Amino acid sequence: MENTFQDSKLRRIALVIQYDGASFSGWQRQKNNPSIQETLEDAIESLDPLGPCKTFAAGRTDSGVHAAGQVVHFDCLGTIPPLRWSSALNGRLPKTIRVIKSIDMPFNWHSCYSAIYRRYRYTIHNSITPNLFLDKWTWHRYKYSLDTSIMRSALDGLIGLHDFSAFQRSGSKRINALTTIQEVHIQREGDLIFIEIQATGFLYGMVRLLVGQLVGLGEHRFSLDDFETRWRNRRRKEIKESAPAHGLCFLKAGYKESILSQELNCCFMPKFFISKASSPPIPPQFDSL
Amino acid sequence: MENTFQDSKLRRIALVIQYDGASFSGWQRQKNNPSIQETLEDAIESLDPLGPCKTFAAGRTDSGVHAAGQVVHFDCLGTIPPLRWSSALNGRLPKTIRVIKSIDMPFNWHSCYSAIYRRYRYTIHNSITPNLFLDKWTWHRYKYSLDTSIMRSALDGLIGLHDFSAFQRSGSKRINALTTIQEVHIQREGDLIFIEIQATGFLYGMVRLLVGQLVGLGEHRFSLDDFETRWRNRRRKEIKESAPAHGLCFLKAGYKESILSQELNCCFMPKFFISKASSPPIPPQFDSL
Repeated sequence: MENTFQDSKLRRIALVIQYDGASFSGWQRQKNNPSIQETLEDAIESLDPLGPCKTFAAGRTDSGVHAAGQVVHFDCLGTIPPLRWSSALNGRLPKTIRVIKSIDMPFNWHSCYSAIYRRYRYTIHNSITPNLFLDKWTWHRYKYSLDTSIMRSALDGLIGLHDFSAFQRSGSKRINALTTIQEVHIQREGDLIFIEIQATGFLYGMVRLLVGQLVGLGEHRFSLDDFETRWRNRRRKEIKESAPAHGLCFLKAGYKESILSQELNCCFMPKFFISKASSPPIPPQFDSL
Repeated sequence: MENTFQDSKLRRIALVIQYDGASFSGWQRQKNNPSIQETLEDAIESLDPLGPCKTFAAGRTDSGVHAAGQVVHFDCLGTIPPLRWSSALNGRLPKTIRVIKSIDMPFNWHSCYSAIYRRYRYTIHNSITPNLFLDKWTWHRYKYSLDTSIMRSALDGLIGLHDFSAFQRSGSKRINALTTIQEVHIQREGDLIFIEIQATGFLYGMVRLLVGQLVGLGEHRFSLDDFETRWRNRRRKEIKESAPAHGLCFLKAGYKESILSQELNCCFMPKFFISKASSPPIPPQFDSL
Protein backbone atom coordinates (compact mmCIF):
# COMPACT_ATOMS: atom_id res chain seq x y z
CA MET A 1 0.00 0.00 0.00
CA GLU A 2 2.64 2.47 1.10
CA ASN A 3 4.73 1.67 -1.94
CA THR A 4 1.85 2.25 -4.32
CA PHE A 5 1.16 5.51 -2.61
CA GLN A 6 4.79 6.64 -2.92
CA ASP A 7 4.95 5.79 -6.62
CA SER A 8 1.72 7.58 -7.33
CA LYS A 9 2.09 11.25 -8.02
CA LEU A 10 -0.21 13.65 -9.75
CA ARG A 11 1.26 14.56 -13.12
CA ARG A 12 0.29 16.52 -16.21
CA ILE A 13 0.82 14.64 -19.47
CA ALA A 14 0.85 16.30 -22.89
CA LEU A 15 0.03 14.14 -25.90
CA VAL A 16 0.56 14.80 -29.58
CA ILE A 17 -2.18 12.91 -31.37
CA GLN A 18 -3.38 12.20 -34.89
CA TYR A 19 -6.88 11.24 -35.91
CA ASP A 20 -8.95 10.43 -38.93
CA GLY A 21 -11.76 12.96 -38.69
CA ALA A 22 -14.12 10.82 -40.81
CA SER A 23 -14.60 8.43 -37.91
CA PHE A 24 -15.74 11.04 -35.39
CA SER A 25 -18.18 13.88 -34.99
CA GLY A 26 -15.37 16.23 -34.01
CA TRP A 27 -13.04 16.66 -31.04
CA GLN A 28 -15.61 17.69 -28.46
CA ARG A 29 -17.60 15.23 -26.37
CA GLN A 30 -21.24 14.98 -27.48
CA LYS A 31 -24.26 13.18 -26.17
CA ASN A 32 -25.04 10.74 -28.95
CA ASN A 33 -22.09 10.81 -31.32
CA PRO A 34 -18.59 9.40 -31.04
CA SER A 35 -16.03 12.15 -30.37
CA ILE A 36 -12.25 12.00 -30.20
CA GLN A 37 -12.36 13.47 -26.70
CA GLU A 38 -14.66 10.79 -25.31
CA THR A 39 -12.73 7.94 -26.96
CA LEU A 40 -9.44 9.25 -25.59
CA GLU A 41 -10.80 9.89 -22.10
CA ASP A 42 -12.23 6.36 -21.93
CA ALA A 43 -8.82 4.92 -22.85
CA ILE A 44 -7.02 7.06 -20.23
CA GLU A 45 -9.54 6.12 -17.53
CA SER A 46 -8.95 2.43 -18.27
CA LEU A 47 -5.22 2.93 -17.54
CA ASP A 48 -5.19 5.40 -14.65
CA PRO A 49 -6.70 5.34 -11.15
CA LEU A 50 -7.41 9.09 -10.91
CA GLY A 51 -11.05 8.64 -11.87
CA PRO A 52 -13.10 10.65 -14.37
CA CYS A 53 -10.64 12.04 -16.87
CA LYS A 54 -10.86 15.44 -18.51
CA THR A 55 -8.75 16.18 -21.59
CA PHE A 56 -8.08 19.59 -23.17
CA ALA A 57 -7.06 20.14 -26.80
CA ALA A 58 -5.17 22.99 -28.47
CA GLY A 59 -7.86 23.15 -31.15
CA ARG A 60 -11.44 21.87 -31.04
CA THR A 61 -11.70 20.48 -34.56
CA ASP A 62 -15.11 20.06 -36.20
CA SER A 63 -16.73 16.88 -37.39
CA GLY A 64 -14.74 15.33 -40.24
CA VAL A 65 -11.62 17.46 -39.77
CA HIS A 66 -8.37 15.48 -39.36
CA ALA A 67 -5.43 16.14 -37.05
CA ALA A 68 -1.77 15.40 -37.69
CA GLY A 69 -0.35 17.06 -34.57
CA GLN A 70 -3.17 17.94 -32.19
CA VAL A 71 -1.89 18.73 -28.67
CA VAL A 72 -3.91 17.43 -25.73
CA HIS A 73 -3.27 17.30 -22.00
CA PHE A 74 -4.69 15.52 -18.98
CA ASP A 75 -3.75 14.94 -15.36
CA CYS A 76 -3.15 11.45 -13.99
CA LEU A 77 -2.12 9.73 -10.80
CA GLY A 78 -0.86 6.31 -11.87
CA THR A 79 2.63 4.90 -12.27
CA ILE A 80 2.85 4.83 -16.08
CA PRO A 81 6.05 6.75 -16.96
CA PRO A 82 5.22 9.83 -19.10
CA LEU A 83 7.00 8.57 -22.22
CA ARG A 84 5.10 5.28 -22.00
CA TRP A 85 1.66 6.83 -22.21
CA SER A 86 1.84 6.92 -26.02
CA SER A 87 2.29 3.17 -26.49
CA ALA A 88 -0.07 2.35 -23.59
CA LEU A 89 -2.83 4.42 -25.18
CA ASN A 90 -2.18 3.15 -28.70
CA GLY A 91 -2.85 -0.33 -27.36
CA ARG A 92 -6.35 0.76 -26.22
CA LEU A 93 -7.39 3.24 -28.87
CA PRO A 94 -9.00 2.46 -32.23
CA LYS A 95 -6.60 2.72 -35.21
CA THR A 96 -8.32 5.98 -36.19
CA ILE A 97 -6.57 7.75 -33.28
CA ARG A 98 -2.77 7.49 -32.83
CA VAL A 99 -0.72 9.00 -30.04
CA ILE A 100 2.65 9.93 -31.47
CA LYS A 101 4.26 11.60 -28.43
CA SER A 102 3.66 11.78 -24.69
CA ILE A 103 5.56 14.26 -22.51
CA ASP A 104 5.61 15.23 -18.81
CA MET A 105 4.58 18.88 -18.41
CA PRO A 106 4.34 21.34 -15.48
CA PHE A 107 0.90 22.20 -14.09
CA ASN A 108 1.13 25.81 -15.20
CA TRP A 109 1.19 24.64 -18.81
CA HIS A 110 -2.15 24.18 -20.62
CA SER A 111 -2.57 22.69 -24.11
CA CYS A 112 -5.16 25.31 -25.06
CA TYR A 113 -4.44 28.44 -22.99
CA SER A 114 -0.65 28.26 -23.36
CA ALA A 115 -0.79 27.90 -27.14
CA ILE A 116 0.43 30.95 -29.05
CA TYR A 117 -0.69 29.70 -32.43
CA ARG A 118 -2.53 26.93 -34.28
CA ARG A 119 -1.74 25.86 -37.82
CA TYR A 120 -3.98 24.16 -40.39
CA ARG A 121 -3.41 22.75 -43.87
CA TYR A 122 -6.15 22.47 -46.49
CA THR A 123 -5.38 20.21 -49.47
CA ILE A 124 -7.15 20.42 -52.85
CA HIS A 125 -6.72 17.77 -55.55
CA ASN A 126 -7.16 19.78 -58.75
CA SER A 127 -7.34 17.22 -61.55
CA ILE A 128 -9.96 15.67 -63.81
CA THR A 129 -8.84 12.21 -62.71
CA PRO A 130 -9.94 10.95 -59.28
CA ASN A 131 -7.33 9.35 -57.02
CA LEU A 132 -8.16 6.78 -54.36
CA PHE A 133 -4.99 7.46 -52.37
CA LEU A 134 -5.90 11.12 -51.92
CA ASP A 135 -9.68 10.79 -51.46
CA LYS A 136 -9.61 10.71 -47.71
CA TRP A 137 -7.43 13.81 -47.18
CA THR A 138 -8.18 16.12 -50.08
CA TRP A 139 -11.02 18.03 -51.72
CA HIS A 140 -11.34 16.94 -55.35
CA ARG A 141 -12.04 20.00 -57.55
CA TYR A 142 -12.10 18.73 -61.11
CA LYS A 143 -14.08 21.19 -63.20
CA TYR A 144 -11.56 24.04 -63.54
CA SER A 145 -7.85 24.53 -63.05
CA LEU A 146 -7.74 26.87 -60.06
CA ASP A 147 -6.11 30.24 -60.72
CA THR A 148 -3.66 30.13 -57.82
CA SER A 149 -2.10 33.50 -58.66
CA ILE A 150 -5.34 35.38 -58.02
CA MET A 151 -5.90 33.27 -54.89
CA ARG A 152 -2.40 34.20 -53.71
CA SER A 153 -2.98 37.91 -54.22
CA ALA A 154 -6.01 37.67 -51.93
CA LEU A 155 -3.91 36.47 -49.00
CA ASP A 156 -1.82 39.52 -48.12
CA GLY A 157 -4.72 41.54 -46.78
CA LEU A 158 -5.62 38.76 -44.36
CA ILE A 159 -2.37 38.96 -42.36
CA GLY A 160 -2.66 40.64 -38.96
CA LEU A 161 -5.42 41.33 -36.43
CA HIS A 162 -8.83 41.66 -38.06
CA ASP A 163 -12.48 41.11 -37.40
CA PHE A 164 -13.20 37.93 -39.35
CA SER A 165 -16.96 37.79 -38.69
CA ALA A 166 -17.40 37.03 -42.39
CA PHE A 167 -15.66 33.70 -41.84
CA GLN A 168 -17.47 32.63 -38.67
CA ARG A 169 -20.20 30.03 -38.68
CA SER A 170 -23.18 30.67 -36.45
CA GLY A 171 -23.23 28.81 -33.16
CA SER A 172 -19.99 30.27 -31.84
CA LYS A 173 -19.77 31.32 -28.18
CA ARG A 174 -16.96 33.82 -28.78
CA ILE A 175 -17.60 37.40 -27.67
CA ASN A 176 -16.00 38.82 -30.79
CA ALA A 177 -14.56 37.67 -34.10
CA LEU A 178 -11.12 39.22 -33.71
CA THR A 179 -8.11 37.06 -34.37
CA THR A 180 -4.59 37.45 -35.75
CA ILE A 181 -3.54 35.58 -38.88
CA GLN A 182 0.24 35.20 -38.64
CA GLU A 183 0.92 33.36 -41.86
CA VAL A 184 -1.05 32.11 -44.86
CA HIS A 185 0.20 30.72 -48.14
CA ILE A 186 -0.87 28.75 -51.18
CA GLN A 187 1.39 26.38 -53.04
CA ARG A 188 0.66 24.26 -56.11
CA GLU A 189 2.72 21.08 -56.60
CA GLY A 190 1.69 18.86 -59.49
CA ASP A 191 -2.05 18.26 -59.18
CA LEU A 192 -2.23 19.32 -55.53
CA ILE A 193 -2.83 22.73 -53.99
CA PHE A 194 -1.82 23.25 -50.37
CA ILE A 195 -3.23 26.14 -48.35
CA GLU A 196 -1.56 26.62 -44.97
CA ILE A 197 -2.77 29.08 -42.39
CA GLN A 198 -1.44 29.96 -38.96
CA ALA A 199 -3.30 32.16 -36.48
CA THR A 200 -3.41 32.88 -32.76
CA GLY A 201 -6.85 31.32 -32.80
CA PHE A 202 -9.53 30.27 -35.27
CA LEU A 203 -13.21 31.10 -35.35
CA TYR A 204 -15.85 28.39 -35.71
CA GLY A 205 -15.70 27.11 -39.32
CA MET A 206 -13.18 29.83 -40.30
CA VAL A 207 -10.69 27.88 -42.44
CA ARG A 208 -13.40 26.09 -44.42
CA LEU A 209 -15.32 29.31 -45.15
CA LEU A 210 -12.09 31.07 -46.16
CA VAL A 211 -11.05 28.18 -48.42
CA GLY A 212 -14.53 28.17 -49.96
CA GLN A 213 -14.05 31.84 -50.88
CA LEU A 214 -10.51 31.31 -52.16
CA VAL A 215 -11.71 28.49 -54.42
CA GLY A 216 -14.57 30.67 -55.75
CA LEU A 217 -11.96 33.31 -56.55
CA GLY A 218 -9.64 30.74 -58.18
CA GLU A 219 -12.55 29.54 -60.34
CA HIS A 220 -13.31 33.14 -61.35
CA ARG A 221 -16.81 33.03 -59.89
CA PHE A 222 -16.28 36.50 -58.40
CA SER A 223 -13.58 39.14 -58.37
CA LEU A 224 -10.76 39.95 -55.98
CA ASP A 225 -12.68 43.10 -55.08
CA ASP A 226 -15.73 41.03 -54.15
CA PHE A 227 -13.57 38.83 -51.96
CA GLU A 228 -12.06 41.82 -50.15
CA THR A 229 -15.34 43.70 -49.78
CA ARG A 230 -17.09 40.68 -48.34
CA TRP A 231 -14.71 39.93 -45.54
CA ARG A 232 -13.67 43.49 -44.70
CA ASN A 233 -17.34 44.51 -44.42
CA ARG A 234 -18.26 41.34 -42.51
CA ARG A 235 -20.82 40.28 -45.11
CA ARG A 236 -21.30 36.84 -43.62
CA LYS A 237 -24.50 36.29 -45.64
CA GLU A 238 -22.68 36.57 -48.96
CA ILE A 239 -20.28 33.82 -47.97
CA LYS A 240 -22.21 30.71 -48.72
CA GLU A 241 -19.82 27.87 -49.45
CA SER A 242 -17.80 26.04 -46.89
CA ALA A 243 -15.02 23.76 -48.18
CA PRO A 244 -15.64 20.14 -47.10
CA ALA A 245 -14.17 19.01 -43.78
CA HIS A 246 -12.14 16.07 -45.13
CA GLY A 247 -9.67 18.37 -46.93
CA LEU A 248 -8.74 20.07 -43.66
CA CYS A 249 -6.12 18.98 -41.17
CA PHE A 250 -4.98 20.48 -37.86
CA LEU A 251 -1.21 20.49 -38.33
CA LYS A 252 0.19 21.75 -35.04
CA ALA A 253 0.03 24.14 -32.12
CA GLY A 254 2.87 26.39 -30.98
CA TYR A 255 4.04 27.15 -27.43
CA LYS A 256 6.57 29.51 -25.90
CA GLU A 257 9.92 28.11 -24.73
CA SER A 258 8.87 24.64 -23.75
CA ILE A 259 10.10 21.16 -24.43
CA LEU A 260 6.97 20.74 -26.48
CA SER A 261 7.97 23.46 -28.95
CA GLN A 262 11.08 21.54 -29.90
CA GLU A 263 9.27 18.21 -30.01
CA LEU A 264 6.69 19.79 -32.28
CA ASN A 265 9.11 21.48 -34.60
CA CYS A 266 8.38 19.01 -37.38
CA CYS A 267 5.24 18.43 -39.36
CA PHE A 268 3.49 15.15 -38.66
CA MET A 269 1.34 15.22 -41.78
CA PRO A 270 3.04 13.69 -44.82
CA LYS A 271 3.23 15.82 -47.93
CA PHE A 272 1.58 14.05 -50.84
CA PHE A 273 2.91 14.49 -54.32
CA ILE A 274 1.19 13.50 -57.53
CA SER A 275 2.49 14.71 -60.87
CA LYS A 276 0.16 16.53 -63.26
CA ALA A 277 -2.12 14.01 -64.95
CA SER A 278 -5.09 15.58 -66.71
CA SER A 279 -5.58 19.25 -65.95
CA PRO A 280 -9.09 20.63 -66.05
CA PRO A 281 -9.68 23.67 -68.31
CA ILE A 282 -8.82 27.22 -67.25
CA PRO A 283 -11.95 28.85 -65.78
CA PRO A 284 -13.61 31.51 -67.98
CA GLN A 285 -12.61 35.07 -67.06
CA PHE A 286 -14.77 36.70 -64.45
CA ASP A 287 -17.10 39.25 -65.96
CA SER A 288 -18.33 41.85 -63.50
CA LEU A 289 -21.53 42.53 -65.47
CA MET B 1 -35.43 -2.06 -82.50
CA GLU B 2 -33.39 -1.54 -85.63
CA ASN B 3 -31.90 1.64 -84.17
CA THR B 4 -30.82 -0.07 -80.98
CA PHE B 5 -29.25 -2.80 -83.04
CA GLN B 6 -27.32 -0.28 -85.17
CA ASP B 7 -25.96 1.62 -82.12
CA SER B 8 -24.93 -1.55 -80.38
CA LYS B 9 -21.55 -2.81 -81.36
CA LEU B 10 -19.24 -5.20 -79.63
CA ARG B 11 -16.29 -3.27 -78.20
CA ARG B 12 -13.27 -3.92 -76.03
CA ILE B 13 -12.81 -1.42 -73.23
CA ALA B 14 -9.60 -1.01 -71.25
CA LEU B 15 -9.85 0.48 -67.75
CA VAL B 16 -7.16 1.86 -65.49
CA ILE B 17 -8.34 1.27 -61.96
CA GLN B 18 -7.26 1.90 -58.40
CA TYR B 19 -8.33 -0.05 -55.35
CA ASP B 20 -7.80 -0.22 -51.64
CA GLY B 21 -6.62 -3.80 -51.14
CA ALA B 22 -7.73 -3.86 -47.50
CA SER B 23 -11.36 -4.07 -48.57
CA PHE B 24 -10.98 -7.18 -50.77
CA SER B 25 -9.53 -10.66 -50.71
CA GLY B 26 -7.51 -9.96 -53.85
CA TRP B 27 -8.23 -9.35 -57.51
CA GLN B 28 -9.50 -12.80 -58.41
CA ARG B 29 -13.12 -13.89 -58.02
CA GLN B 30 -13.61 -16.27 -55.09
CA LYS B 31 -16.53 -18.24 -53.76
CA ASN B 32 -17.10 -16.67 -50.36
CA ASN B 33 -14.99 -13.54 -50.24
CA PRO B 34 -15.39 -10.15 -51.88
CA SER B 35 -12.94 -9.72 -54.79
CA ILE B 36 -12.23 -6.71 -56.95
CA GLN B 37 -13.03 -8.76 -60.06
CA GLU B 38 -16.50 -9.73 -58.88
CA THR B 39 -17.36 -6.21 -57.69
CA LEU B 40 -16.26 -4.75 -61.01
CA GLU B 41 -18.04 -7.38 -63.12
CA ASP B 42 -21.29 -6.81 -61.21
CA ALA B 43 -21.06 -3.08 -61.90
CA ILE B 44 -20.37 -3.64 -65.62
CA GLU B 45 -23.25 -6.11 -65.93
CA SER B 46 -25.62 -3.56 -64.42
CA LEU B 47 -24.69 -1.11 -67.21
CA ASP B 48 -24.32 -3.32 -70.28
CA PRO B 49 -26.70 -5.72 -72.06
CA LEU B 50 -24.01 -8.22 -73.16
CA GLY B 51 -24.76 -10.52 -70.23
CA PRO B 52 -22.28 -12.30 -67.93
CA CYS B 53 -19.16 -10.14 -67.92
CA LYS B 54 -15.61 -11.43 -67.74
CA THR B 55 -12.81 -9.02 -66.85
CA PHE B 56 -9.06 -9.64 -67.23
CA ALA B 57 -6.34 -7.81 -65.26
CA ALA B 58 -2.68 -7.12 -66.04
CA GLY B 59 -1.74 -8.41 -62.59
CA ARG B 60 -3.70 -10.65 -60.25
CA THR B 61 -2.92 -8.92 -56.96
CA ASP B 62 -3.20 -10.85 -53.68
CA SER B 63 -5.47 -10.14 -50.77
CA GLY B 64 -4.62 -6.79 -49.15
CA VAL B 65 -2.42 -5.53 -52.01
CA HIS B 66 -3.41 -2.13 -53.42
CA ALA B 67 -3.43 -0.91 -57.01
CA ALA B 68 -2.76 2.60 -58.30
CA GLY B 69 -2.80 1.79 -62.02
CA GLN B 70 -4.14 -1.73 -62.58
CA VAL B 71 -5.13 -2.34 -66.21
CA VAL B 72 -8.32 -4.33 -66.86
CA HIS B 73 -10.32 -5.09 -69.97
CA PHE B 74 -13.76 -6.39 -70.83
CA ASP B 75 -16.00 -6.64 -73.86
CA CYS B 76 -19.36 -4.93 -74.04
CA LEU B 77 -22.25 -4.38 -76.41
CA GLY B 78 -24.05 -1.31 -75.09
CA THR B 79 -24.06 2.30 -76.21
CA ILE B 80 -21.99 3.86 -73.45
CA PRO B 81 -19.17 5.77 -75.22
CA PRO B 82 -15.75 4.34 -74.24
CA LEU B 83 -14.57 7.47 -72.41
CA ARG B 84 -17.80 7.52 -70.39
CA TRP B 85 -17.29 4.10 -68.87
CA SER B 86 -15.06 5.52 -66.12
CA SER B 87 -17.67 7.90 -64.70
CA ALA B 88 -20.52 5.43 -65.31
CA LEU B 89 -18.68 2.77 -63.31
CA ASN B 90 -17.59 5.16 -60.56
CA GLY B 91 -21.26 5.86 -59.94
CA ARG B 92 -21.90 2.15 -59.28
CA LEU B 93 -18.70 1.03 -57.57
CA PRO B 94 -17.88 1.33 -53.86
CA LYS B 95 -15.42 4.15 -53.03
CA THR B 96 -12.70 1.53 -52.48
CA ILE B 97 -12.48 1.01 -56.27
CA ARG B 98 -12.00 4.00 -58.62
CA VAL B 99 -11.83 3.90 -62.40
CA ILE B 100 -9.44 6.61 -63.51
CA LYS B 101 -9.43 5.99 -67.27
CA SER B 102 -11.48 4.10 -69.85
CA ILE B 103 -10.28 3.61 -73.41
CA ASP B 104 -11.52 1.86 -76.57
CA MET B 105 -9.10 -0.92 -77.58
CA PRO B 106 -8.84 -3.36 -80.51
CA PHE B 107 -9.78 -7.00 -79.97
CA ASN B 108 -6.23 -8.20 -80.53
CA TRP B 109 -5.15 -6.30 -77.44
CA HIS B 110 -5.34 -8.09 -74.06
CA SER B 111 -4.70 -6.45 -70.67
CA CYS B 112 -2.74 -9.45 -69.44
CA TYR B 113 -1.22 -11.18 -72.48
CA SER B 114 -0.21 -7.96 -74.27
CA ALA B 115 1.58 -6.56 -71.20
CA ILE B 116 5.36 -6.44 -71.51
CA TYR B 117 5.97 -5.49 -67.89
CA ARG B 118 4.33 -4.92 -64.53
CA ARG B 119 5.64 -2.51 -61.91
CA TYR B 120 5.13 -2.55 -58.12
CA ARG B 121 6.08 -0.18 -55.33
CA TYR B 122 6.64 -1.28 -51.74
CA THR B 123 6.69 1.50 -49.12
CA ILE B 124 8.29 1.19 -45.66
CA HIS B 125 7.78 3.78 -42.93
CA ASN B 126 11.05 3.57 -40.99
CA SER B 127 10.52 5.68 -37.86
CA ILE B 128 9.90 5.14 -34.17
CA THR B 129 6.81 7.36 -34.38
CA PRO B 130 3.63 5.90 -35.91
CA ASN B 131 1.75 7.95 -38.50
CA LEU B 132 -1.96 7.63 -39.14
CA PHE B 133 -1.75 9.13 -42.64
CA LEU B 134 0.69 6.44 -43.77
CA ASP B 135 -0.76 3.44 -41.91
CA LYS B 136 -2.88 2.19 -44.75
CA TRP B 137 -0.18 2.22 -47.43
CA THR B 138 3.10 1.51 -45.66
CA TRP B 139 4.81 -1.11 -43.52
CA HIS B 140 5.87 0.46 -40.23
CA ARG B 141 9.36 -0.84 -39.26
CA TYR B 142 10.28 1.02 -36.09
CA LYS B 143 12.94 -1.05 -34.29
CA TYR B 144 16.00 -0.33 -36.43
CA SER B 145 17.03 2.20 -39.03
CA LEU B 146 17.28 0.07 -42.17
CA ASP B 147 20.72 -0.05 -43.76
CA THR B 148 19.65 0.93 -47.27
CA SER B 149 23.18 0.82 -48.68
CA ILE B 150 23.52 -2.92 -48.03
CA MET B 151 19.97 -3.43 -49.33
CA ARG B 152 20.92 -1.53 -52.49
CA SER B 153 24.01 -3.65 -53.11
CA ALA B 154 21.80 -6.74 -53.07
CA LEU B 155 19.74 -5.52 -56.00
CA ASP B 156 22.22 -5.66 -58.90
CA GLY B 157 22.34 -9.46 -59.01
CA LEU B 158 18.57 -9.65 -59.37
CA ILE B 159 18.43 -7.90 -62.75
CA GLY B 160 17.80 -10.14 -65.75
CA LEU B 161 16.26 -13.56 -66.36
CA HIS B 162 16.58 -15.86 -63.35
CA ASP B 163 14.87 -18.74 -61.65
CA PHE B 164 13.26 -17.04 -58.67
CA SER B 165 11.83 -20.20 -57.02
CA ALA B 166 13.17 -18.88 -53.72
CA PHE B 167 10.67 -16.04 -53.94
CA GLN B 168 7.61 -18.06 -54.95
CA ARG B 169 4.87 -18.94 -52.51
CA SER B 170 3.40 -22.42 -52.74
CA GLY B 171 0.09 -22.71 -54.54
CA SER B 172 1.32 -21.34 -57.86
CA LYS B 173 0.20 -22.97 -61.09
CA ARG B 174 3.21 -21.76 -63.09
CA ILE B 175 5.25 -24.43 -64.84
CA ASN B 176 8.53 -22.75 -63.88
CA ALA B 177 9.80 -19.86 -61.77
CA LEU B 178 11.66 -18.03 -64.52
CA THR B 179 11.05 -14.35 -64.94
CA THR B 180 12.99 -11.23 -65.97
CA ILE B 181 13.50 -8.38 -63.53
CA GLN B 182 13.99 -5.28 -65.68
CA GLU B 183 14.50 -2.69 -62.99
CA VAL B 184 14.67 -2.56 -59.20
CA HIS B 185 15.70 0.27 -56.92
CA ILE B 186 15.55 1.48 -53.33
CA GLN B 187 15.26 5.09 -52.33
CA ARG B 188 15.08 6.65 -48.88
CA GLU B 189 13.36 10.02 -48.52
CA GLY B 190 12.93 11.30 -44.97
CA ASP B 191 11.37 8.53 -42.94
CA LEU B 192 10.12 6.59 -45.97
CA ILE B 193 11.84 3.89 -48.00
CA PHE B 194 10.49 3.16 -51.49
CA ILE B 195 11.32 -0.11 -53.24
CA GLU B 196 10.26 -0.22 -56.89
CA ILE B 197 10.49 -3.31 -59.03
CA GLN B 198 9.58 -3.90 -62.65
CA ALA B 199 9.51 -7.33 -64.29
CA THR B 200 7.99 -9.10 -67.28
CA GLY B 201 5.92 -11.05 -64.79
CA PHE B 202 5.79 -11.78 -61.08
CA LEU B 203 5.58 -15.11 -59.26
CA TYR B 204 2.97 -15.72 -56.58
CA GLY B 205 4.01 -13.70 -53.49
CA MET B 206 7.32 -12.69 -55.10
CA VAL B 207 7.59 -8.99 -54.18
CA ARG B 208 6.58 -9.56 -50.57
CA LEU B 209 9.08 -12.42 -50.07
CA LEU B 210 11.83 -10.36 -51.72
CA VAL B 211 11.05 -7.29 -49.59
CA GLY B 212 11.03 -9.53 -46.48
CA GLN B 213 14.59 -10.62 -47.35
CA LEU B 214 15.75 -7.10 -48.16
CA VAL B 215 14.45 -5.86 -44.80
CA GLY B 216 16.23 -8.76 -42.99
CA LEU B 217 19.40 -7.69 -44.74
CA GLY B 218 18.84 -4.01 -43.90
CA GLU B 219 18.37 -4.95 -40.24
CA HIS B 220 21.62 -6.98 -40.31
CA ARG B 221 19.86 -10.22 -39.44
CA PHE B 222 21.92 -12.05 -42.09
CA SER B 223 24.67 -11.22 -44.53
CA LEU B 224 24.68 -10.21 -48.16
CA ASP B 225 26.21 -13.63 -48.89
CA ASP B 226 23.29 -15.35 -47.18
CA PHE B 227 20.87 -13.31 -49.25
CA GLU B 228 22.62 -14.24 -52.52
CA THR B 229 23.11 -17.92 -51.63
CA ARG B 230 19.47 -18.32 -50.69
CA TRP B 231 17.90 -17.05 -53.86
CA ARG B 232 20.54 -18.26 -56.31
CA ASN B 233 20.27 -21.79 -54.86
CA ARG B 234 16.47 -21.63 -54.69
CA ARG B 235 16.42 -22.21 -50.93
CA ARG B 236 12.75 -21.44 -50.55
CA LYS B 237 12.61 -22.99 -47.06
CA GLU B 238 15.13 -20.51 -45.67
CA ILE B 239 13.00 -17.60 -46.80
CA LYS B 240 10.45 -17.31 -44.05
CA GLU B 241 9.22 -13.76 -43.83
CA SER B 242 6.83 -12.15 -46.23
CA ALA B 243 6.42 -8.37 -46.00
CA PRO B 244 2.78 -7.47 -45.19
CA ALA B 245 0.40 -6.89 -48.10
CA HIS B 246 -0.68 -3.36 -47.18
CA GLY B 247 2.77 -1.89 -48.00
CA LEU B 248 2.52 -3.15 -51.58
CA CYS B 249 0.94 -1.41 -54.54
CA PHE B 250 0.58 -2.42 -58.20
CA LEU B 251 1.77 0.75 -59.93
CA LYS B 252 1.29 0.06 -63.63
CA ALA B 253 1.53 -2.28 -66.59
CA GLY B 254 3.42 -1.54 -69.80
CA TYR B 255 2.32 -2.24 -73.39
CA LYS B 256 3.99 -1.95 -76.78
CA GLU B 257 3.05 0.95 -79.04
CA SER B 258 -0.50 1.52 -78.03
CA ILE B 259 -2.59 4.45 -76.92
CA LEU B 260 -2.56 2.88 -73.50
CA SER B 261 1.21 3.22 -73.14
CA GLN B 262 0.99 6.96 -73.48
CA GLU B 263 -2.03 7.21 -71.23
CA LEU B 264 -0.18 5.21 -68.62
CA ASN B 265 3.07 7.11 -68.79
CA CYS B 266 2.46 8.75 -65.43
CA CYS B 267 2.32 7.25 -61.99
CA PHE B 268 -1.11 7.23 -60.38
CA MET B 269 0.13 6.59 -56.86
CA PRO B 270 1.04 9.76 -54.99
CA LYS B 271 4.49 9.95 -53.48
CA PHE B 272 4.28 10.54 -49.74
CA PHE B 273 6.90 12.63 -48.02
CA ILE B 274 7.46 12.88 -44.29
CA SER B 275 10.60 14.49 -42.94
CA LYS B 276 12.78 12.57 -40.49
CA ALA B 277 11.15 12.61 -37.05
CA SER B 278 12.64 10.11 -34.62
CA SER B 279 15.03 7.63 -36.22
CA PRO B 280 15.29 4.18 -34.70
CA PRO B 281 18.83 3.01 -33.72
CA ILE B 282 21.28 1.56 -36.24
CA PRO B 283 20.98 -2.25 -36.22
CA PRO B 284 23.90 -4.10 -34.57
CA GLN B 285 26.48 -5.37 -37.07
CA PHE B 286 25.80 -8.84 -38.43
CA ASP B 287 28.13 -11.37 -36.87
CA SER B 288 28.48 -14.50 -38.99
CA LEU B 289 29.43 -16.65 -35.97
